[in-house]
Amino acid sequence: MNTENNELAKSVVNEVLKNDLFSQWLGIKILEIREGYCRIEMTVRSEMINGLGIVHGGICFSLADSAFAFACNNRNNLSVALDTSINFLKAVHVADTLTAEVREIHNGRSTGLYQISITNQQKETVALFKGTCFRTGKKII
Amino acid sequence: MNTENNELAKSVVNEVLKNDLFSQWLGIKILEIREGYCRIEMTVRSEMINGLGIVHGGICFSLADSAFAFACNNRNNLSVALDTSINFLKAVHVADTLTAEVREIHNGRSTGLYQISITNQQKETVALFKGTCFRTGKKII
Amino acid sequence: MNTENNELAKSVVNEVLKNDLFSQWLGIKILEIREGYCRIEMTVRSEMINGLGIVHGGICFSLADSAFAFACNNRNNLSVALDTSINFLKAVHVADTLTAEVREIHNGRSTGLYQISITNQQKETVALFKGTCFRTGKKII
Amino acid sequence: MNTENNELAKSVVNEVLKNDLFSQWLGIKILEIREGYCRIEMTVRSEMINGLGIVHGGICFSLADSAFAFACNNRNNLSVALDTSINFLKAVHVADTLTAEVREIHNGRSTGLYQISITNQQKETVALFKGTCFRTGKKII
Repeated sequence: MNTENNELAKSVVNEVLKNDLFSQWLGIKILEIREGYCRIEMTVRSEMINGLGIVHGGICFSLADSAFAFACNNRNNLSVALDTSINFLKAVHVADTLTAEVREIHNGRSTGLYQISITNQQKETVALFKGTCFRTGKKII
Repeated sequence: MNTENNELAKSVVNEVLKNDLFSQWLGIKILEIREGYCRIEMTVRSEMINGLGIVHGGICFSLADSAFAFACNNRNNLSVALDTSINFLKAVHVADTLTAEVREIHNGRSTGLYQISITNQQKETVALFKGTCFRTGKKII
Repeated sequence: MNTENNELAKSVVNEVLKNDLFSQWLGIKILEIREGYCRIEMTVRSEMINGLGIVHGGICFSLADSAFAFACNNRNNLSVALDTSINFLKAVHVADTLTAEVREIHNGRSTGLYQISITNQQKETVALFKGTCFRTGKKII
Repeated sequence: MNTENNELAKSVVNEVLKNDLFSQWLGIKILEIREGYCRIEMTVRSEMINGLGIVHGGICFSLADSAFAFACNNRNNLSVALDTSINFLKAVHVADTLTAEVREIHNGRSTGLYQISITNQQKETVALFKGTCFRTGKKII
């Protein structure tokens, strides 16, 4: 993971995020980008709750899915999500700040496997996401 | 699946949806509610795209997760999602109308398993969701 | 799904099964093969139980994984499993006869998605398997 | 994780393994047992291959599933697998020695989440398993 690759990673993610209107709606901020890696955060707003008064599962998933995209695409090899899963470990509440951090488990030529943990402001893991992607070989920028 | 149970199912879902601000933001409409079942739809808006110009995976997941909640909770037994997964089969575009339909695979005393298919306005399956829930035994309404 | 493709499917599966020593140990029998599809069965033996006296989860998974392989490879395009999952719905007992049946959900050029249901001799679903594969483009026979 | 709990964990696993005929067939050996944790190994035999000449996916799954059972049950609270998934990262060959190590991600009162990594004798990760269990509250020994 050299400097040049990390610079490319940042350029790709900046370009992607510029057009990513849903990640913008979520309020996602980039904390760190490296080759095959990212750490991002968002703060939960009241319009993100479900009918039981806690935060909708789709919010955690969306944050993790954005982190997945920012990590698995950032070698400038357009990758599409095939199978993703998420386990919910702890309820999330309005005003919580969630951080998603990526671990690249496998970076294959044609496919990749990533794990994303989501923690709240008390460093408690609230959800664990797993994503398999297929690499198309197309450039993004 | 008798009439009384279906009436209870409708009452629970109406109550849940009233407080579900994120499902409201998504624009989810209820098409059909029965015991352990629902069919819901939404139309994709431009603010829902990701950085690659197609609809963010979190939108499909959120629609499916709402359908999951509306089906697995509607016997008035508060249930929490444990493990969920989603496979993405086809890109979704702005202005597509997505329908989520639930199949209850297992309705256990303590746990349940549900499958939700998401189709677009051309009846093409765009995503397939699977969810396992734990039943708390608490009432919702 | 024409006759020629179904004949090719049978030839591929026969060749694969001939070398598949673990499927042979399991006692798997082919009931039906068609393009992108198969139905197979096995009868559980006492050496297949786990420490709690019921059949080991690995037995159901293995039966489903063989069915997955026989279906996703049978267009003579060598495919490798990426992500697979299985939900266990009902305990399996010694002497049960298990049937695995494949549903091809997506047959893409580079990837595929398959669902396999496992039922016992009373037609009860005991497990539900999902598998995503990557197609290498190599021939098998 | 005190000594007493670790002793209980060992007693439970020893009792379970004594009756676990399929784990015995696999040749599973216990390397380490602690509360909510285990590390086990097995060596692949020629009868464990699939029709493509590599080790059948069911073998890796079965090893991981045994590790899952030995970890999630070892507080003497009978637990049943609900949803499990496995990602295959690298082909396994005859004569490989596989080690499965458990990470307990969540130990809830009613449910638990475990991750099991499988590595070969070269310390390469060949598969990654995830399992959600439901705790019945019944004792095992």
